[in-house]
Amino acid sequence: MLSSNRSVTVPLGDRSYRVVIGQGLIDQLGALLRRANLEGTVALITDDRVQPLYASRATSSLTQAGYKTSLHVVPHGERSKSFTAAEQLCESLSRAGIDRSSVAIALGGGVIGDLAGFVASIFARGISYVQVPTTVMAQVDSSVGGKTAVNLQLGKNLVGTFHQPLLVIIDPDSLQSLGRREKNEGLAEVIKYGVIADRTLLDDLHSAFEHRLNQVIERCVAIKAEIVANDEQERSGKRELLNFGHTLGHAIEAAAGYGRLLHGEAISLGMRAAAWLSTQKAGLAVSEYERLIRLLREFELPVTVPPDLLSRDIMERVFADKKFRAGQIRFVLTSGFGTAFVSEKITRADLESAVESLRELSM
Amino acid sequence: MLSSNRSVTVPLGDRSYRVVIGQGLIDQLGALLRRANLEGTVALITDDRVQPLYASRATSSLTQAGYKTSLHVVPHGERSKSFTAAEQLCESLSRAGIDRSSVAIALGGGVIGDLAGFVASIFARGISYVQVPTTVMAQVDSSVGGKTAVNLQLGKNLVGTFHQPLLVIIDPDSLQSLGRREKNEGLAEVIKYGVIADRTLLDDLHSAFEHRLNQVIERCVAIKAEIVANDEQERSGKRELLNFGHTLGHAIEAAAGYGRLLHGEAISLGMRAAAWLSTQKAGLAVSEYERLIRLLREFELPVTVPPDLLSRDIMERVFADKKFRAGQIRFVLTSGFGTAFVSEKITRADLESAVESLRELSM
Repeated sequence: MLSSNRSVTVPLGDRSYRVVIGQGLIDQLGALLRRANLEGTVALITDDRVQPLYASRATSSLTQAGYKTSLHVVPHGERSKSFTAAEQLCESLSRAGIDRSSVAIALGGGVIGDLAGFVASIFARGISYVQVPTTVMAQVDSSVGGKTAVNLQLGKNLVGTFHQPLLVIIDPDSLQSLGRREKNEGLAEVIKYGVIADRTLLDDLHSAFEHRLNQVIERCVAIKAEIVANDEQERSGKRELLNFGHTLGHAIEAAAGYGRLLHGEAISLGMRAAAWLSTQKAGLAVSEYERLIRLLREFELPVTVPPDLLSRDIMERVFADKKFRAGQIRFVLTSGFGTAFVSEKITRADLESAVESLRELSM
Repeated sequence: MLSSNRSVTVPLGDRSYRVVIGQGLIDQLGALLRRANLEGTVALITDDRVQPLYASRATSSLTQAGYKTSLHVVPHGERSKSFTAAEQLCESLSRAGIDRSSVAIALGGGVIGDLAGFVASIFARGISYVQVPTTVMAQVDSSVGGKTAVNLQLGKNLVGTFHQPLLVIIDPDSLQSLGRREKNEGLAEVIKYGVIADRTLLDDLHSAFEHRLNQVIERCVAIKAEIVANDEQERSGKRELLNFGHTLGHAIEAAAGYGRLLHGEAISLGMRAAAWLSTQKAGLAVSEYERLIRLLREFELPVTVPPDLLSRDIMERVFADKKFRAGQIRFVLTSGFGTAFVSEKITRADLESAVESLRELSM
């Protein structure tokens, strides 16, 4: 069964690791950890929504492979990406006897991956961990690349570490338990990969996602693996391309109050704004911009901001995240889908008009 | 003036850094940062006891050198080595506009160094920092080597990172403001370096500390630099030697309740117990053991545990920190002062008798 799986390697020297994609892999967790020569006790970290779905299957598989396993459950949702949740997890790991030789498993969506990865990077000054993403967003994007994070009041992901997992195990079957809204928010990240790196991902996305799910996941992961291999710690500008739609998206998500907009929904808004700015500053064809809007709407992703969200509040959050130097900010634009670049010449006024572009739908 | 300073290099490849030791260096902070080519805004992190003593001098020096500086003050004492204090610091840095290109300065004792180093390692996924230790303990030991930490309920330093500073600036003049108890607790770490690496440090310690202060600091830092260079992340066993007296010391400190015993006082007790065990298991001469007790008492460091501290509670804390494998624990012993080794054969019963050795003084 394992032989029919797809696999992508993230090449990072002695920190290289594999991303394995295949139906039913949650039941193979223990065997996959053994195959990767992981030893020590296992801390299974998940949230209260994923726990009833997959925790017992995961635990059985680990037990069968001979791993002593403890379970650590946090409340679901963005509010768990906090210092408080990280501290409670660390206390829980400590009570369970987890030590430097143990392995943590992040079983869940983007919040669990970011939080458990962060905890793994600081508990006992760093322990190994494995990502087992169960949402579209986490499977196509956040489980790969080693960025961990918790939020601050002023903005998302302002605290975190670079801590690569030892293995990523993706079971697309787990997406069947997602509601429509959760599935759709994950597609925002697939659309991002289409815009910045491979426009074929945008073609017939609906049927592709139904019928060629594993291929879509593999393609997104392969794009991310290549980018991360070239710029692990986001120093050269290459990895910044993954932030397409995220500068304004994060600001909108934080200004709305965590939990009101799903991450992918905020990114949908950020991508529309970035594409609009690309028509103004990078020669993106208006027809492409309109195509993006149609695509986002096809998956019920928002393309206009809630009217009560003030531009002033959104702009304030941008400042928490990004530095303006001589009045200009680094910002990812696209001159045509399938390629993107970092502009250093976006002004505050540019961003304000981009936010205003989200006030109406003129199509 | 700078030319009369002493300097030790911690050789860690592209993470190598200098430890500069010299009277009055707090007034040279800005110039030293410029000389090290540090750019960006500066976050000066300190506690409410050090702030009135040195914060304005440090800030003046930074301002004179052209650095835009913000000040971040936490309550003094071990209780600030917490997730709560780390979160408040991160929020404060975020409000002050600190970003990836900024530099944090840890101005204070071991608590500030560990806490500010931890915050520097996680804020914006890691920013640069400089250690400016102001206590004996921090100057001879904790400011060098890149270990950062906060505490959990079950034990000290159970959470943290390895994050090397870019520079360590030691101004021995700052020790003049310490009370006698604080000075003495720092000498516990000097005695540790004497026991594990250089017995000449133990000779005439009192006058050495008064008259050859810079040399004593330099010698301890040089020993630590060599050990850290050989085993940065404590994997080979070499760095473990620095834990002499710390396994039981940390357990005693936690069991007593943070703040009751100073760190160095708990280490004094841990060292007596480790030396006693060394007489039983490593052939340490009883005369050496008795010499250690005399030295500790000379500096008013405790050599017997408070009677209300139960051995059971102390042993429970040992379990939070260390793993017994097949009933045995790794533990640092000495067969003669000036050298130490890691034994893998210490049992729970051995540790219990070592704790009992702290119940009375039979000299």
